[in-house]
Amino acid sequence: MKNSFKIAICQMSVVDDKQTNLDKVTAMIKESGDNGADMVVLPEMFNCPYETHKFRAYAESADDSPSLKTVSMAANMNNIYLVAGSIPELLDGNIYNSCFILNRNGEVIDVYRKMHLFDVDIPGMIFNESETVTAGNKITVVDTDLTHIGIGICYDIRFPELFRIMTLKKAGLMIVPGAFNMKTGPAHWETLIRARAIDNQVYMVVASPAPNEDLSYVAYGHSLIVDPWGKILCEAGENEEIIYATIDTSYTDKIREELPILKNRRTDIYKLIEINNKKIK
Amino acid sequence: MKNSFKIAICQMSVVDDKQTNLDKVTAMIKESGDNGADMVVLPEMFNCPYETHKFRAYAESADDSPSLKTVSMAANMNNIYLVAGSIPELLDGNIYNSCFILNRNGEVIDVYRKMHLFDVDIPGMIFNESETVTAGNKITVVDTDLTHIGIGICYDIRFPELFRIMTLKKAGLMIVPGAFNMKTGPAHWETLIRARAIDNQVYMVVASPAPNEDLSYVAYGHSLIVDPWGKILCEAGENEEIIYATIDTSYTDKIREELPILKNRRTDIYKLIEINNKKIK
Repeated sequence: MKNSFKIAICQMSVVDDKQTNLDKVTAMIKESGDNGADMVVLPEMFNCPYETHKFRAYAESADDSPSLKTVSMAANMNNIYLVAGSIPELLDGNIYNSCFILNRNGEVIDVYRKMHLFDVDIPGMIFNESETVTAGNKITVVDTDLTHIGIGICYDIRFPELFRIMTLKKAGLMIVPGAFNMKTGPAHWETLIRARAIDNQVYMVVASPAPNEDLSYVAYGHSLIVDPWGKILCEAGENEEIIYATIDTSYTDKIREELPILKNRRTDIYKLIEINNKKIK
Repeated sequence: MKNSFKIAICQMSVVDDKQTNLDKVTAMIKESGDNGADMVVLPEMFNCPYETHKFRAYAESADDSPSLKTVSMAANMNNIYLVAGSIPELLDGNIYNSCFILNRNGEVIDVYRKMHLFDVDIPGMIFNESETVTAGNKITVVDTDLTHIGIGICYDIRFPELFRIMTLKKAGLMIVPGAFNMKTGPAHWETLIRARAIDNQVYMVVASPAPNEDLSYVAYGHSLIVDPWGKILCEAGENEEIIYATIDTSYTDKIREELPILKNRRTDIYKLIEINNKKIK
């Protein structure tokens, strides 16, 4: 594996028109590649507004997906790994919030389906993702020749269990497409992202759409890249932009040697286990 | 249980003289009680500098402990619950970093012995607690008529497993005596404390000594009380002071209803278990 590579987050403004979103994605991936990115990350629901009643109309089956064809071509053309945020995926009649991961040839090498669905009733923010979306069941760590990547989507970030398990499965870089909102974003976004990085001594790369006031659910923006010491390497604002950082796995090794948190876990007192079940989605 | 009560942190400046420390504790507990506190929290190693080579000289056996006698009398006189930070405890020839919990009559109702020992080698900060201290083995949630209290000490706070287990064991208030330093404090203190609160939707009450430049290990200060939404209720500076906040368990219930994180855990995918072993310390 390479010690060091360049990653980009495309904090795009998602609109209520699929083709416009796909054209935007193509342009932003190209710009990222032109600027030397080895890996590009898109936000949650990059092809579709984050509104549950729209998911079915925008949903695509992986074997016949205009959105996947678009990003596949862009990955291949620009010779970059792509963590394609998420799209509403149609599978066996159900809709999943799915993150496809593509290699430099534009081939899908893995998919992660959001495991924790966002059902909340906060003053000013009522949302029931599970009304429309079916939860995935598979913890996903993707092996690439750059590094091992753990994947989560948005609300998943609130569950330290998931990130710890992915860390123990050798993921040193966590990529999380996510769309927090104007209520939970200012309150929790940066703290949770930095804490996952500090606890697990991993890079956190979290990609939000830019806020778009024309949609009913306004994403928080503030896409963020944090290093294994918890230091913010770069942060987007509230506009459409691309942010870049260098992922250096030798720095991860250094931090883990100095502060051996993972070795100091008391596995004689507590155990965190992944349950192997037969569901595969 | 009472819905709401007042808690105080005594951010005292610990010095290299036990009796001076005990006199200071007596005075600060009295002041807290006079100001209406129902529960008072002392910092980690309140009777002793946080220097491993001093622990044995300062250590006391629980059944003949001048430090415990002092705080017991203070708890009883002021009619307050006391989470007595920690002291070096001598037990069966070993030294533990131990937190005693006392009721309003000054009776010890439980003890927690630090479970994760601080062994690090960061530039500018080398520390090997386990050279001198033996690790405890018992996760501790204390039942009082005010609320259920989970206890951690300092480095423990880096282990989300411990705080999640205490939450699942009904602790809604986590009390953590801790002495971060001038390297890890600015980098991690607030983020970790707020993240434990947000993840578990619990109050976090974290008590540091005030920084004392005369000691070789200078504590960070910045004692902190955070609510279950992750909001900072009060924060100490770098001087000796007492800070106060109201703990309101009905607010915890409200937050957990609005954002049902604990219900949304995927216990069909992962399991976090406490291992019952026969060691009791």
